[in-house]
Amino acid sequence: MDHDRLDRARAAVADAALDALLVGPGPDLRYLTGYHAPALERLTLLVVPVAQDPWLLVPALEGARARASGADRIAELIEWDETDDPIALVADRLPGAGALAVSDRLWSVFTLALQSALPGARFHSGSIVLRPLRRIKSADEIDALAAAADAIDRVHADVPELLSPGRTETEIGRDLTERIGETHDEVNFVIVGSGPNGASPHHETGSRVLQAGDAVVVDIGGMLAGYCSDATRNYVLGSPPPGYGALHGVLEQAHRAAVEAVRPGVRAGDVDEAARSVIRDAGYGAAFIHRTGHGIGVEEHEEPWIVAGNDQVIEAGMAFSIEPGIYLPERYGARIEDIVVATDDGVRILNQRPRTLTICA
Amino acid sequence: MDHDRLDRARAAVADAALDALLVGPGPDLRYLTGYHAPALERLTLLVVPVAQDPWLLVPALEGARARASGADRIAELIEWDETDDPIALVADRLPGAGALAVSDRLWSVFTLALQSALPGARFHSGSIVLRPLRRIKSADEIDALAAAADAIDRVHADVPELLSPGRTETEIGRDLTERIGETHDEVNFVIVGSGPNGASPHHETGSRVLQAGDAVVVDIGGMLAGYCSDATRNYVLGSPPPGYGALHGVLEQAHRAAVEAVRPGVRAGDVDEAARSVIRDAGYGAAFIHRTGHGIGVEEHEEPWIVAGNDQVIEAGMAFSIEPGIYLPERYGARIEDIVVATDDGVRILNQRPRTLTICA
Repeated sequence: MDHDRLDRARAAVADAALDALLVGPGPDLRYLTGYHAPALERLTLLVVPVAQDPWLLVPALEGARARASGADRIAELIEWDETDDPIALVADRLPGAGALAVSDRLWSVFTLALQSALPGARFHSGSIVLRPLRRIKSADEIDALAAAADAIDRVHADVPELLSPGRTETEIGRDLTERIGETHDEVNFVIVGSGPNGASPHHETGSRVLQAGDAVVVDIGGMLAGYCSDATRNYVLGSPPPGYGALHGVLEQAHRAAVEAVRPGVRAGDVDEAARSVIRDAGYGAAFIHRTGHGIGVEEHEEPWIVAGNDQVIEAGMAFSIEPGIYLPERYGARIEDIVVATDDGVRILNQRPRTLTICA
Repeated sequence: MDHDRLDRARAAVADAALDALLVGPGPDLRYLTGYHAPALERLTLLVVPVAQDPWLLVPALEGARARASGADRIAELIEWDETDDPIALVADRLPGAGALAVSDRLWSVFTLALQSALPGARFHSGSIVLRPLRRIKSADEIDALAAAADAIDRVHADVPELLSPGRTETEIGRDLTERIGETHDEVNFVIVGSGPNGASPHHETGSRVLQAGDAVVVDIGGMLAGYCSDATRNYVLGSPPPGYGALHGVLEQAHRAAVEAVRPGVRAGDVDEAARSVIRDAGYGAAFIHRTGHGIGVEEHEEPWIVAGNDQVIEAGMAFSIEPGIYLPERYGARIEDIVVATDDGVRILNQRPRTLTICA
């Protein structure tokens, strides 16, 4: 764990004229402390005040897990018992707080209770503090993302042997889950969209049986040493269905155009437009129904958002997906996705698998 | 899906003098609509207004999944595009709202944005509306919980053959995950606490290698047809460690006492005390570090909380765990857990596996 993160967060809390940052379970907590806390009905909350050292409130039941994460070495661990009121504990330690920020994923049941217990405080989004920290990756973080990308590339290398007519998406998904588990610390998601299911970008897996001639979108990701992987490739069983080869060629071009658009100083929306214009010019504009990409780090989806109209300026150290897709309902879909990092003078692509359509025998 | 639930929720919204209930991804949404929406940075929100029919706002990208759940048959589906502002869409449709309730798990980033966009509204916890509905189970819900309990009992029946000296908790956990997957629709959690790891109630699995003479706490759960299972049993590899047999005997007594205390009209805190007093009298009071149980349904942990001091009165149809535990740090732990349902005149235990210590050869 990079202990400086908590110091930098505290400085950012002061700069934003806040009294404290309150961080519940989720990627912000993991980023700041290394503690991968479960989101429970029992409150876990890291408090980063300007005027005190940081402290981490955990249910006594979770004390062992919190200590095992090492979080107690960078924040005072305060355990609350089953019959304590954790909200009152927080409020008592923040008397007179006027401006607080809460992490984006804190559940409303806690947000509303904190608002009631601290009626004098204004509540702000924690991302005003954490977003600028999290969206620029350090060299260590980029190494971790590259290692995760390499791990998911190795899983994609195994995909062709798993795809065969007669198998269901669910069976293939189970095998992929196992292989991600072998190469990563955690499995984040597995999408196997065969035939028409490929036209639903967030289809996971289902009972559909693969057939010869199917196009199959495989989008998989896991977590390795606290950082996420995320990569999509397209496969066909035997001969591609009519039109699919041409569509895939357009997508390869769009992907390349977006990657080549990445460098410090361009806007996120420009990167989106680089992919989108290729797809639009080829006549598939209406079939590219999502943004071109999302940031990635301790979280699968985080800033920056590579979406039309986003004026966010790309800076060196930003890591994000480039994943244009084309979806033809009831027929098939395709998406090519790599993780890239903006460098001082351009871009580094972390995923190395060929982006061409893979024909499975 | 029981379509009446949405009608009953709407009536409860009116009774509570609210203008609308706003429900994000999570168990409340699943309970009301059957839609198991992913919690994403893109807003999904069910709105149950008093003055309009219910509507479900989803990112366009999730439209197919939302429709596949059938949620569009009970609420108008409104899809927002990548460049729309979903918060503004909600605010525009709730002009002049004065009192709103939001589901407990809605992320703060959405809660705070809704508060900003609807400055005239007071925000309340959605549980004031949903808690009374969700905590009394219908006959169908009890059937579903019983089916889930039966499924997890079948996994516990397989545990002895998985435990053997030389295997790691992680390996055993992987096997259990697979068996839960075979008997349920989803795996919720797997705890294999061997030896001293058993003394940390929420330990999941780790690299520890099982040894002859280990006590092992196995606490597992999944979801079947939308309802959760959760059951804990204790196993030993060969001869129990010194003192473990006696400790387990106390726990069996405590478990029985709590189950026998369950009937309509008693308070949740009384059920807790029934287990706790047995453990306290045996000299292990300080080692029972958690509440006696939690409600269960579409969510693993929900109301009622079987915890000291809780004056909640038990009613027929409430379903919850009874799970006293005794934890001796650095030595071992034990917990016995079943799901029970309060009936008109007593209690029904849904799990059927023997509660005695299982000796694995």
